Amino acid sequence: RLAGSRPLQHGRGSALRDVANRLRVRALRARGNHPTSCCSAAEIAAVLFFQAMRYWARQPAHPSNDCFVLSKGHAAPLLYAAWAEASFLKEPELLNLRKINSDLEGHPTPRLPFVDVATGLLGQGLGVACGMAYSRQVLRQGQVSALGGRPSLGEAWPGCDPPPFLGLCGGLGRHGLSWLPAHPALTHQPPLPSQSWGENPGVLAPSSPSPSWGENPGVLAHFCSLPGGGSLPGVEDAENWHGKPMPKDKVESIIGAIQSQIQTHEVLVPQPPIEDVPQISIAGICMPSPSEYTTGDKVATRKAYGVALAKLGAASEHVVALDGDTKNSTFSELFKQAHPERYIECYIAEQNMVSVILGCAARDQAVVFASTFAAFFTRAFVHIRMGAISQSNLNLCGSHCGVSIGEDGPSQMALEDIAMFRAIPGCTVFYPSDAVSTERAVCLAANTKGICFIRTSRPETPVIYPPEETFEIGQAKVVHKSDADRVTVIGAGVTLHEALAAAHELAKQGTHIRVIDPFTIKPLDAATIVNSAQATGGRIITVEDHYTEGGIGEAVAGEPGMVLQSLAVCGVPQSGKPAELLDLFGISTKSIIAAVKNTFAS
Amino acid sequence: RLAGSRPLQHGRGSALRDVANRLRVRALRARGNHPTSCCSAAEIAAVLFFQAMRYWARQPAHPSNDCFVLSKGHAAPLLYAAWAEASFLKEPELLNLRKINSDLEGHPTPRLPFVDVATGLLGQGLGVACGMAYSRQVLRQGQVSALGGRPSLGEAWPGCDPPPFLGLCGGLGRHGLSWLPAHPALTHQPPLPSQSWGENPGVLAPSSPSPSWGENPGVLAHFCSLPGGGSLPGVEDAENWHGKPMPKDKVESIIGAIQSQIQTHEVLVPQPPIEDVPQISIAGICMPSPSEYTTGDKVATRKAYGVALAKLGAASEHVVALDGDTKNSTFSELFKQAHPERYIECYIAEQNMVSVILGCAARDQAVVFASTFAAFFTRAFVHIRMGAISQSNLNLCGSHCGVSIGEDGPSQMALEDIAMFRAIPGCTVFYPSDAVSTERAVCLAANTKGICFIRTSRPETPVIYPPEETFEIGQAKVVHKSDADRVTVIGAGVTLHEALAAAHELAKQGTHIRVIDPFTIKPLDAATIVNSAQATGGRIITVEDHYTEGGIGEAVAGEPGMVLQSLAVCGVPQSGKPAELLDLFGISTKSIIAAVKNTFAS
Repeated sequence: RLAGSRPLQHGRGSALRDVANRLRVRALRARGNHPTSCCSAAEIAAVLFFQAMRYWARQPAHPSNDCFVLSKGHAAPLLYAAWAEASFLKEPELLNLRKINSDLEGHPTPRLPFVDVATGLLGQGLGVACGMAYSRQVLRQGQVSALGGRPSLGEAWPGCDPPPFLGLCGGLGRHGLSWLPAHPALTHQPPLPSQSWGENPGVLAPSSPSPSWGENPGVLAHFCSLPGGGSLPGVEDAENWHGKPMPKDKVESIIGAIQSQIQTHEVLVPQPPIEDVPQISIAGICMPSPSEYTTGDKVATRKAYGVALAKLGAASEHVVALDGDTKNSTFSELFKQAHPERYIECYIAEQNMVSVILGCAARDQAVVFASTFAAFFTRAFVHIRMGAISQSNLNLCGSHCGVSIGEDGPSQMALEDIAMFRAIPGCTVFYPSDAVSTERAVCLAANTKGICFIRTSRPETPVIYPPEETFEIGQAKVVHKSDADRVTVIGAGVTLHEALAAAHELAKQGTHIRVIDPFTIKPLDAATIVNSAQATGGRIITVEDHYTEGGIGEAVAGEPGMVLQSLAVCGVPQSGKPAELLDLFGISTKSIIAAVKNTFAS
Repeated sequence: RLAGSRPLQHGRGSALRDVANRLRVRALRARGNHPTSCCSAAEIAAVLFFQAMRYWARQPAHPSNDCFVLSKGHAAPLLYAAWAEASFLKEPELLNLRKINSDLEGHPTPRLPFVDVATGLLGQGLGVACGMAYSRQVLRQGQVSALGGRPSLGEAWPGCDPPPFLGLCGGLGRHGLSWLPAHPALTHQPPLPSQSWGENPGVLAPSSPSPSWGENPGVLAHFCSLPGGGSLPGVEDAENWHGKPMPKDKVESIIGAIQSQIQTHEVLVPQPPIEDVPQISIAGICMPSPSEYTTGDKVATRKAYGVALAKLGAASEHVVALDGDTKNSTFSELFKQAHPERYIECYIAEQNMVSVILGCAARDQAVVFASTFAAFFTRAFVHIRMGAISQSNLNLCGSHCGVSIGEDGPSQMALEDIAMFRAIPGCTVFYPSDAVSTERAVCLAANTKGICFIRTSRPETPVIYPPEETFEIGQAKVVHKSDADRVTVIGAGVTLHEALAAAHELAKQGTHIRVIDPFTIKPLDAATIVNSAQATGGRIITVEDHYTEGGIGEAVAGEPGMVLQSLAVCGVPQSGKPAELLDLFGISTKSIIAAVKNTFAS
């Protein structure tokens, strides 16, 4: 008899126990790196996949299916074993685990149709599941389960508002079961009684999830923290087994011990979904009305973001907005005012906000936008990179970029956000410089696959484009030009306006420069930039409210045939008035004029 | 009578209440952006600064002083008001808040001697305070206080081991006081009884902190979450006051109402420290013995990191190491085995690990190294950037970089870490390519100001440098060279070895290339690179196990006079064997040979 196991009590109990042991055997056979993590959750997986969840096993991505998030992604072999038990994966395929030609990766990714969001970053799954539950709540159908370990709880604090209908299923064992009932996400539904869990967290009475699953869609989070609990003699809770495949000389005897526990070969068939839900369409969203700005109006791009988002929300009922307690600064409050039922407040927990938005966007259930200060998205870098691995379609708007925010000081100034988002594979980085282009960026982002980042600024700047101006991703605008131009200056956001002011000032002095608005920093419109450089003697100056590293200058530097001078913020900045800081950090009109003159001096 | 105020009960109660109101008046006069956040914590600040804490008010950075962390950095005017009350700041200086020539920034930074760690990122302070308590625990002296709001609790989950002696002082008001007692950081000391707080969280009975402060150093965390509670009529707990200065027409009447409550002008003098603690020296640490590697040995740089760190720990008792539950992968376990009393386990909460290390390093109390997978430092990007603003001396080691980790797949592969750390002001980015240079990197990092990042690799690679080889920051090594070289190839980590293999293979075919090991990516040895480029016809190839954006190629691209070809990982990678993945993503020997040949073809 294996340590910690105890009889299951109801209905299909012994068959479920056999399923759990078959999952263990498969996970051990595959010789993945985390055998104990797989084995400790085998009963939970058996109960979820073959009693609690409703899904079409042959169509894992069917929109009517209940969802499952394996927050502890390193237990991937258990997930693959469950889908083999459900007959979706073929048994021999499991032995291709982690091989280059197999989709059965070391941690689950959406290359597999039963994976909605890539995991492997611990702690992310609860937030993701909350987001998935939110999207499905609109559909009034389906359940979402998350299976994870201890890190989930801190990550997801302090939850979000409205809270998903959440059942938090105990099992933290030694690590504080009593903590669970007060988790703030537990608003609408009492947690499961902790008594329904045995003392060993790996062992679940199969009937226990059911009572808490109501008619509403919800999240059921399962936690298990005793590595190998209830399964592996001599390994349970021992140090140093996490992250190591079971040695060959041990694995067969352990498998034998587990197999000897299996009593039946009864095949359990998962229950189908209760009703058939059609896939919604989120493609081709257009703004319901043209831009209402007049050239010369002074509008902060952060405000234009809020205006555009509220309009977009009117165009499609599938647009959902999130914010991290900064809605009156990012202007996402305009969306909230117009569409309160589709706004999620995530408080000051940007990491959880990005997990929630990942879940919201899964299975193309919503067009999602999340906003906060651009500086604070750095708290969610790891979640954003997981979004790229998840092939997610997310739109993130970061306001208050650069020293131009002024008095709040360096902790609030995003100066590394372009570097961060450029390093996300497939990310589109919008850096609009006026209200009209911001509105276009929002609409383009809504219709663009992958992760989109929109960088907005705090200061009010003039509208420079007419309302009918069209924009495309990867297409820059030459906003100031003559045949006599001798230098090309690239600016974006506030520095585009500084560059324009420099152009006017220099023109009075008889020096002409070309000014380019890149619109997107990634992809960069290399053709327009290279052509302009060629037309201006190869001389290019970039000027940006961002650090040098990873910014616009470095993005441009990769292009051939030019001599580049990069004006960017160096060193940690400070409080002060925006104009003072642009001067102090060498990215103001004055600095651009000096740089242009210097270009000829050298 | 102001809403929510109630009489203080003991000793200096009425004088402390008057102090609190004077702090409010000063904070309102300064017209900062968060008047309610300042006012809600005025009593707590008064009690801490003028009853509980022991410090020399004229020497705020004195090593014997108790420490205070304002986790909610936006309440900066309250902090400045307290130091004015303590006569360190001059009253008129407070009116220079947020001005360009003042050190009184919008959020506190160590430009002020009473600020150890910059705050303004919410939720960070509890972890920082734990780290400070840890360093001071070695000294067996002093107390550390943190004052913050709700986000702190999730951030600091699941604490660290050994836990600091922590007293967590209630006052979450509506938001879950009952949650506090189970916080995992609360291991050694019971929390304060919640009854010692009034129903309004802004109001603190002045005697309440004292009972929980034992003889041991510790952390006392105070939380308050009712904006403006107990202070501002008509503003308390109203929406939309956070982040706005009080309107001029309102501020004077509110100040008047507060001033009318002040009964005495008694000046309270803070208590001095109990004993005088000398400042320790952490400068000039040398390795106790030479490197013990032989050229040609195969050693993973991640392992060399652990070996070096354990040696460094023997050289100085002030070396402290942290890890995020990956110690047997990063090899920080070698340090733990040698110096268990100076190892802190931070579990899977990299964000908190960096907060804790920030605290450990404060006031030069320790030489600190934290390690985890490089990919997971992206969870702490915001904390690392706060470290730069804090002028902190931190050493972070990220292992398992790039696709060369193999089977674990993309979630575990750091491919954006160079971009992230390059964008940290003043950061030194080491990327050692063998065991000897890794050992040098560890020793150089220990003696280098600012944030240092050491990028280590999973695969075993040959030792290429003799044990006596010297290394300097910003000094590259030309590791393969002849007079006939026609291309310069820059590689680092595994790709340096691929480049060397390419050089040998190409030499057989009669083509000679120069190979450079940059050692540090930031600062970059531009002189060596430019000279090599000139010697090889301007042709440079960079090859890196990192994404293109923000990586070695972009760092090099900024240098003039060369034609650069960048080989880097494009797109989200996958599981597979390391060698297969280097080939698949075009950064292997084969790819380098093809790129060299292509250079001549074009």
